[in-house]
Amino acid sequence: MAEDNDAPGTAERRRRGIATYRDVMKADPPARSSPFTEIGMLDFVFAEVWARPGLSRRDRRFVSLACVAAADAAAPIEEHVYAALASGDITFEEMQEVVLHFAVYCGWPKGSFFEQVTWSQWARLHAERGETMPPPQPLPYPPTPGDPELRLQGGEQEFRDVNHVPAPPRTSPYTQAGILNFVFGEMWQRPNLGRRERRLVTVACVALDDTPLPIRSHVYSAMKSGDLTLDEMQEVVLHFAAYYGWPKASFLNQVVAEEWERIQRG
Amino acid sequence: MAEDNDAPGTAERRRRGIATYRDVMKADPPARSSPFTEIGMLDFVFAEVWARPGLSRRDRRFVSLACVAAADAAAPIEEHVYAALASGDITFEEMQEVVLHFAVYCGWPKGSFFEQVTWSQWARLHAERGETMPPPQPLPYPPTPGDPELRLQGGEQEFRDVNHVPAPPRTSPYTQAGILNFVFGEMWQRPNLGRRERRLVTVACVALDDTPLPIRSHVYSAMKSGDLTLDEMQEVVLHFAAYYGWPKASFLNQVVAEEWERIQRG
Amino acid sequence: MAEDNDAPGTAERRRRGIATYRDVMKADPPARSSPFTEIGMLDFVFAEVWARPGLSRRDRRFVSLACVAAADAAAPIEEHVYAALASGDITFEEMQEVVLHFAVYCGWPKGSFFEQVTWSQWARLHAERGETMPPPQPLPYPPTPGDPELRLQGGEQEFRDVNHVPAPPRTSPYTQAGILNFVFGEMWQRPNLGRRERRLVTVACVALDDTPLPIRSHVYSAMKSGDLTLDEMQEVVLHFAAYYGWPKASFLNQVVAEEWERIQRG
Repeated sequence: MAEDNDAPGTAERRRRGIATYRDVMKADPPARSSPFTEIGMLDFVFAEVWARPGLSRRDRRFVSLACVAAADAAAPIEEHVYAALASGDITFEEMQEVVLHFAVYCGWPKGSFFEQVTWSQWARLHAERGETMPPPQPLPYPPTPGDPELRLQGGEQEFRDVNHVPAPPRTSPYTQAGILNFVFGEMWQRPNLGRRERRLVTVACVALDDTPLPIRSHVYSAMKSGDLTLDEMQEVVLHFAAYYGWPKASFLNQVVAEEWERIQRG
Repeated sequence: MAEDNDAPGTAERRRRGIATYRDVMKADPPARSSPFTEIGMLDFVFAEVWARPGLSRRDRRFVSLACVAAADAAAPIEEHVYAALASGDITFEEMQEVVLHFAVYCGWPKGSFFEQVTWSQWARLHAERGETMPPPQPLPYPPTPGDPELRLQGGEQEFRDVNHVPAPPRTSPYTQAGILNFVFGEMWQRPNLGRRERRLVTVACVALDDTPLPIRSHVYSAMKSGDLTLDEMQEVVLHFAAYYGWPKASFLNQVVAEEWERIQRG
Repeated sequence: MAEDNDAPGTAERRRRGIATYRDVMKADPPARSSPFTEIGMLDFVFAEVWARPGLSRRDRRFVSLACVAAADAAAPIEEHVYAALASGDITFEEMQEVVLHFAVYCGWPKGSFFEQVTWSQWARLHAERGETMPPPQPLPYPPTPGDPELRLQGGEQEFRDVNHVPAPPRTSPYTQAGILNFVFGEMWQRPNLGRRERRLVTVACVALDDTPLPIRSHVYSAMKSGDLTLDEMQEVVLHFAAYYGWPKASFLNQVVAEEWERIQRG
């Protein structure tokens, strides 16, 4: 019957899910049948989340990559890294900056596996295309000053620019050696990944970590800066919910509404 | 148009989502509009996951409770504990055993907040009903033997009964003082929560932790014992995906298929 | 130029990162070049975090071990367990107590893999040294009383000693059968790992779980007891930030400042 056309499991919705899966993942959906793969993954995540307008496929990838890297299930990391590179949505240089950015926000142990996967999937892509993979090259020196005072000042400036609030005092190792010297004094200033893209990765990371203050400050500044509109941020929440679950997304959703009101009030 | 009746955002599907939300959560859905609450929560999690047959509302609560307690977003924990008690699906005594079981599988820090919430929501429910809440009573001593050898033997037997594999050797503190002496020597043997219910909590916990071996052993034994059928376990995977995200559910889904094949092969 | 000597990517800083990596990890750094390994791991985590004074290499290992065990990426767990044993910083008996303590605070599923790794790396170390690994021996019975009343009383005393606050009532399974009977009635009282070392593991575990109350209570008592000074605790925050990411460390950093003020006020 016509009115069942878009119920889960119906032909039209399933077709859309499969087509979107192929388009996003650059692979066929899993053959094995289960409520998870069919009702959940194809009929919802791909037919109804990835297929939505309001956030580009490239944008959605930054949110997904952070989530799969955090969830540390090996196959989804490999599949999402492969798909992002194979589609051309994200370059290899951008992907490697995503790894560094993610490692800072979710810790080096999880970053370590993510980094290995970027190389293995990059090699897989070259092999599939019959191309020779160029040997890894030493990177150029980062652009940050060696003088520690200049570096801290640069970190304080970048902190203000990114977060739209004053920089924290230089009084603990966490803020001085960590936040000002490295995270904002260096990492956020790196080339090869734009600030908007870094925000997408960051919002996903603070949302899955769900520590109260960082969620607020990054959601606030992403919208305050104009890098993400309210509508885009709300799409991020839905996308994140699929990739890291409803409970954590519920808090993120609340924070988005509250921080948007705060911005509107000026 | 008729064929849009069940597309996300359409009246019929939204009505079903709202009705299921009220039935499950014993509260009205959030008034604030966003893709997360409407397209995600109402149109998918409630209209299409909680509304599915194949796993009872009570069963789904054990999976959800483990996930919200792990995700440590305060509001969802409070709402799910309240709803489980208010519906009568889970008694207060069962709920408190869920907290202990969860604390063992996901750690005492997260258990700490969960435990406080059971008392505050239990008090809220009494207040709403105009009933006097009875003062907390000291519990009877745990039912396990004090003699350390008997206790370890009891733990080894319970380990075999629950896991359908031999007990581990008594050679590390983790296995001897932890697994045999406490987790199976005491916790799994406690009254007030059935083994099937403990399995639902456990499968959710090992899936959100996603360490390879415990997922396999608990998925295997839950189906091998007959406590959960394959169809029920596959519903657990979909429900879990909504509450803890697709990447981790993807690995759980794979393990369910592989362990079921192993059971079929005998 | 002198002022460039310590910029990231410069020869001097990279040399320090590599030397510290070898000293800590007892292995050569990964050959592959990427922002993650060079700018992140060598130039920051090793050149600027591990190389800091204020917390010994042994102390830093307890924090790192908890973080890598929680992050469940296999290679970092193996590498850090190996390095801790190979350096002689942590004995095998201590390591096994770390596993039990970690399992309690972060759950048995994650503990399960960690435990296996301690045995495999211990075997690897014996093989590398051409030594025969002694067969695992059954452990002596746990040292706690079998009488349930004495055991609970011992747990209440240990709870007060460790936490510097009154013990919770015996009114829920979580507090009675769990916290008083096992966590403090047995686990914290075990030999082979000092209380200061247990605090380092615990602070890392509650910080990565980031449930509000346990962070406060363990940070408070670690400093109140004198087991960790304020300076040491602040080094823990920076070290933790590198291993589990800035968002969670941000909350820990705030709690350290607030609890220190509370202690100063008396």
